[in-house]
Amino acid sequence: MPQGDMKQPLLRSSRRPQGPLSDVGTDAPLVGILGTGDFSRSLAQRLVASGYRVVIGSRTPKRFSGLFPEEAEVTTQQEAASQADLVFVGLFVEHYSTLSELKEALAGKTVVDVSNGTSINHDGPSNAEQLATLFPDSLVVKGFNVISAWTLQTGPRDGSRQVLLCGDNVAAKTSVAQLCRDMGFLPVDLGRLSSARDIENVPLRLFPVWTTPVVLALSLFFFFYFFNFLHDVLHPYVVEGKNVFYKLPIDTVNVTLPAVAMVMLALVYLPGLLAAFLQLWHGTKYRRFPGWLDRWLQGRKQMGLLAFFCAALHAVYSLCRPMLRSSRYAILNAAYKQVKNGPPEVWDAEQVWRVELYVSAGVLALGLLSLLAVASLPSVGNSLNWREFTFIQSRLGYTALVMSTLHTLLFGWDRAFTPSRYHFYLPPTFVLALVLPCAVLLGRLALAVPCVAFRLARIRRGWERDRGIRFQLPEEAANGVEQHISDV
Amino acid sequence: MPQGDMKQPLLRSSRRPQGPLSDVGTDAPLVGILGTGDFSRSLAQRLVASGYRVVIGSRTPKRFSGLFPEEAEVTTQQEAASQADLVFVGLFVEHYSTLSELKEALAGKTVVDVSNGTSINHDGPSNAEQLATLFPDSLVVKGFNVISAWTLQTGPRDGSRQVLLCGDNVAAKTSVAQLCRDMGFLPVDLGRLSSARDIENVPLRLFPVWTTPVVLALSLFFFFYFFNFLHDVLHPYVVEGKNVFYKLPIDTVNVTLPAVAMVMLALVYLPGLLAAFLQLWHGTKYRRFPGWLDRWLQGRKQMGLLAFFCAALHAVYSLCRPMLRSSRYAILNAAYKQVKNGPPEVWDAEQVWRVELYVSAGVLALGLLSLLAVASLPSVGNSLNWREFTFIQSRLGYTALVMSTLHTLLFGWDRAFTPSRYHFYLPPTFVLALVLPCAVLLGRLALAVPCVAFRLARIRRGWERDRGIRFQLPEEAANGVEQHISDV
Amino acid sequence: MPQGDMKQPLLRSSRRPQGPLSDVGTDAPLVGILGTGDFSRSLAQRLVASGYRVVIGSRTPKRFSGLFPEEAEVTTQQEAASQADLVFVGLFVEHYSTLSELKEALAGKTVVDVSNGTSINHDGPSNAEQLATLFPDSLVVKGFNVISAWTLQTGPRDGSRQVLLCGDNVAAKTSVAQLCRDMGFLPVDLGRLSSARDIENVPLRLFPVWTTPVVLALSLFFFFYFFNFLHDVLHPYVVEGKNVFYKLPIDTVNVTLPAVAMVMLALVYLPGLLAAFLQLWHGTKYRRFPGWLDRWLQGRKQMGLLAFFCAALHAVYSLCRPMLRSSRYAILNAAYKQVKNGPPEVWDAEQVWRVELYVSAGVLALGLLSLLAVASLPSVGNSLNWREFTFIQSRLGYTALVMSTLHTLLFGWDRAFTPSRYHFYLPPTFVLALVLPCAVLLGRLALAVPCVAFRLARIRRGWERDRGIRFQLPEEAANGVEQHISDV
Repeated sequence: MPQGDMKQPLLRSSRRPQGPLSDVGTDAPLVGILGTGDFSRSLAQRLVASGYRVVIGSRTPKRFSGLFPEEAEVTTQQEAASQADLVFVGLFVEHYSTLSELKEALAGKTVVDVSNGTSINHDGPSNAEQLATLFPDSLVVKGFNVISAWTLQTGPRDGSRQVLLCGDNVAAKTSVAQLCRDMGFLPVDLGRLSSARDIENVPLRLFPVWTTPVVLALSLFFFFYFFNFLHDVLHPYVVEGKNVFYKLPIDTVNVTLPAVAMVMLALVYLPGLLAAFLQLWHGTKYRRFPGWLDRWLQGRKQMGLLAFFCAALHAVYSLCRPMLRSSRYAILNAAYKQVKNGPPEVWDAEQVWRVELYVSAGVLALGLLSLLAVASLPSVGNSLNWREFTFIQSRLGYTALVMSTLHTLLFGWDRAFTPSRYHFYLPPTFVLALVLPCAVLLGRLALAVPCVAFRLARIRRGWERDRGIRFQLPEEAANGVEQHISDV
Repeated sequence: MPQGDMKQPLLRSSRRPQGPLSDVGTDAPLVGILGTGDFSRSLAQRLVASGYRVVIGSRTPKRFSGLFPEEAEVTTQQEAASQADLVFVGLFVEHYSTLSELKEALAGKTVVDVSNGTSINHDGPSNAEQLATLFPDSLVVKGFNVISAWTLQTGPRDGSRQVLLCGDNVAAKTSVAQLCRDMGFLPVDLGRLSSARDIENVPLRLFPVWTTPVVLALSLFFFFYFFNFLHDVLHPYVVEGKNVFYKLPIDTVNVTLPAVAMVMLALVYLPGLLAAFLQLWHGTKYRRFPGWLDRWLQGRKQMGLLAFFCAALHAVYSLCRPMLRSSRYAILNAAYKQVKNGPPEVWDAEQVWRVELYVSAGVLALGLLSLLAVASLPSVGNSLNWREFTFIQSRLGYTALVMSTLHTLLFGWDRAFTPSRYHFYLPPTFVLALVLPCAVLLGRLALAVPCVAFRLARIRRGWERDRGIRFQLPEEAANGVEQHISDV
Repeated sequence: MPQGDMKQPLLRSSRRPQGPLSDVGTDAPLVGILGTGDFSRSLAQRLVASGYRVVIGSRTPKRFSGLFPEEAEVTTQQEAASQADLVFVGLFVEHYSTLSELKEALAGKTVVDVSNGTSINHDGPSNAEQLATLFPDSLVVKGFNVISAWTLQTGPRDGSRQVLLCGDNVAAKTSVAQLCRDMGFLPVDLGRLSSARDIENVPLRLFPVWTTPVVLALSLFFFFYFFNFLHDVLHPYVVEGKNVFYKLPIDTVNVTLPAVAMVMLALVYLPGLLAAFLQLWHGTKYRRFPGWLDRWLQGRKQMGLLAFFCAALHAVYSLCRPMLRSSRYAILNAAYKQVKNGPPEVWDAEQVWRVELYVSAGVLALGLLSLLAVASLPSVGNSLNWREFTFIQSRLGYTALVMSTLHTLLFGWDRAFTPSRYHFYLPPTFVLALVLPCAVLLGRLALAVPCVAFRLARIRRGWERDRGIRFQLPEEAANGVEQHISDV
């Protein structure tokens, strides 16, 4: 367990100051910790380093005193609970009942529950609420469970500085928040103790907002990959007996990726359109959207980033193609044929233009998507105001969608109308990939028709069809929640 | 209006805890809100979720109570203003006068102005100052206008967590700042109420620091594009009758982009040089720079990022070239010619070296520029100390400029001296693009001449030519504002 | 010295509000500053802009009053020290003794030391401790030295917002922290005044955590470059008389970079394995790792980022190759030979598959490494919980290592067993580069053997071989410091 640089944890040095830390004045506030596990030890070290006096309560104090910093006092649970006004409970929830004899000693004190569950808790009471039931006279605050013992030791270097807190007593919460800041973390108050279950679930989650978008992207990938396999690899083999299975690792993937990117990008902008059409249909904005639409609206950022990832991989794969041995052979064989059969000079101007144009549109689309991706980095997004955020996500985003669609249309050129491209009666992939983006762009155009746009703007300022003219508070125009959807 | 996950806004779940939030104790602080618009509603929800009691003042309380969370009380404006010690005014500025009868009820209380303007306010009084005029006995604080109703609902997930505050009364400001933190935002105090106009202008701005650099980059782009069009496309057409218009989408753009990148990069380092020469000229650092130089110095980051963007696009376009149909035809036709006319083996060692060298320099320049770009991300920049920031922006930056210049010089090789390259008497683009970077590098070299460097260092430590030896406080050497310019 | 936009520093405008800032009420808190250097001036301006009253103490007050904002009072040191309860000392440490006559005036007051050293201080007392010795009755707080005068002026726009603080008196520290927040910075308490030396060293450091990894990467680069020079350039020249020195700028670099990337990536995962084996060996996790292993564990992020940088450069260089003149000549000459000697159709299916497969694995490895790199951006890492962070750094990281190894193995194909590839008895580079990654993957596999994995899991939950069954506090399983290593 590396704990080399504990005592000056926020500095980047690994040297430890040996020094007067041990003579912490008696004026420093006293914090109690019940329990002697890794988390308790790391917490004790960090508290001592932040200038607090610490008393640890253990059932077998003698045994564990060696594992704690010298400056901390290790004593019985009863004594630790009596001395300190703020007590951390570093036990597993199953052992909470063993603390029952401390009930009196902890009465009126701030008790911090740092425990986590072992699996996501959907309905049961949170650990913190169980603790609060055991100690009805104590002021229970939930917190620090999102911080690992490792982070406590090394300081918030790689992980998050946020410490989510909740509790029913404001004063108790404030004192824990202050302690949090003193240790170099950033307290975030999530309200009443009833939020504890959610806070306890936080460290157990594994990319919950990413699950649906990733599953979606993978499904699309497999669908299009299979489709392309049939269309580009199996068909030539079955029909012409041509073995092009070597296309599987790169060529087939590289036709699949842009299709996934196009569909995902369209899916970013579709829910905003649906929301707008729903508002037009209902004639009011004061009607809840169905749950699936709400969730879809909230997953747009993730879908957009996955679209960008696929587009970027597509770019790299495309740029790799001239490096491939298959390209080299193709060009050598073409040169051979040209020399043998002429003409001395090949130049198909239409093909030249087609390729120059679609590559150009593709590069521009990728450039725009990169800007969008950079703007979605938390620290960059934080420096944008609402107008700027909307400008990037909506104006630039739609421009990127237009450029990608153009890229695909130019790539396709007139091939969508060439029967020989319909293998097994299946259209070329780009035709499939274009359906949704074109639909989204047409829908967006429909919303830009003046009379529709005007009606939508009225609705979003609070007008309702069924109530007639309603008293409208003008500030609604100012800090517009409605823009979030209107400008998509 | 998606408001699915309001009550636990900082968690990533969309499940809502149904529960004891409604029995908020009477010990929770009470906050008043005047007005019933979207912003007021979102604010009320967020305050309730953060453990506050909320009372809403409306002119028609019965009508609107359904739109607020159950836990909030909706009553008359008079009553809301009387009960709460901290009152948000959620009205549009035109309706402030309707509040005049609350003057007495609000006397001595903290009144928060959350309003925004509709267009940037250059000279007039801010909304908050107008409110303060109406309620001279209240403690007006400006704030929360930079937060949208949407962000209040969903928590500060995508947007900024910063809430800019200002006000003349420190205690009132502190209490609003605390409330701000309790809701999960980060208060930033901008001082006296006179800053309110600026705070109100913040959400109306659209990338103000980017405007000039972007306009500059676009102008350069159009200039160089037109220049290249004349030079590379129109000239062959007019003089030789050769149709190479297919070059417009990629080749011409790809000659234009690096020229823009070079000039922009030189413009990043030019103002620092000018500042240094001005200081040498005046013999003091205690003389204000002219306004344009100040603004130029402050726009360097944006210009640098645009230079990087152009350079990255240039790289992608260049890498695309072997994929293009025109390259394929060119190589096939060259093969044809070689076979027909010999020689059996082509190898122009000079050209091979030229290309290997300029590509190599280009890749290295791009790598360095990427590091600079990453270091300019807010969260990365935040983790650098001053010396590290200067090292990256100045040492690495100048190295990148040197590599880019080398890339261009090697690309040019001896072509600058080949008359046949001067179409329409215009020099090749790279000659034009090199002027400014070379000037900057020469200027930087001039500053490195020992006697000049020494004099500049003396000036930056406080020495002044005209005053002779002046009493010099040595701490000036330590926290150096002067380094910012000296090391550019 | 650009100070255009001082008074509204956090806004992006450069307009200055001329206004009622000068009539700061007398209720505003009063802050004293001793010293009149750049830092003092910037500090005064910022304090005034944040609503504080400021009094500057100077030995020659008349001389310097013009350099301070009008709102600040410039007076004698004695008077400034007497009036304010919180006093900044803006002098160089050598002049601290000149303040001795202020001892009485400063007794009981909070005195802030903002000074920096000129070189890293390893053993001596810090400036702040020297100040505390001079003023034993004052409450000395160290802070603000990490902030430059420039940042004070422009606001924390580009640099860090963090202000590291330390001090022995908690109340004094709290008041400085509050002041810090009021000025828009983020105070971070590092504990007792004995940490001052470390805080003073912070601004003097130049990427301390990067030094070893960068030196390592450069050494590997030079080693492999020299190796490749012998193998690929010198050998053909000496043995066959073939001049391929043109390979030095790109080809040789491009064989070197992936080797460096592979080794660096393996070095990221090796220390975690060593730690696990040490724990298995000792049969306990309660034994300190040796210092070098601790330091190695803490440098993994930097080594990983350098591996990514090398891999990305390798990708760009590889993509550049078809653009090179040497490739063009090679293909033209091959076409010539094919036409002259046949066959009419070349197609080496094995080579085609080999290239398609290794390029494919390479692109995927690069994609995964990009995700790892993005996740290591501070603002992205901050939004991950512990499980997610571990998932990315460990699962994705190992997958990237597997893909890179596969990429190299497929690139090598059967060449490792072809004697003709052993120039000067040296194996091809990829053989060397594969040693460490393969060893790491085998080691990881060994840890996945059920009986080993089970024993390791037991040890990491607190079990110790020598003590037999020990009382195990179950919370150790929850906030696992051990995971940091176990999942590597």
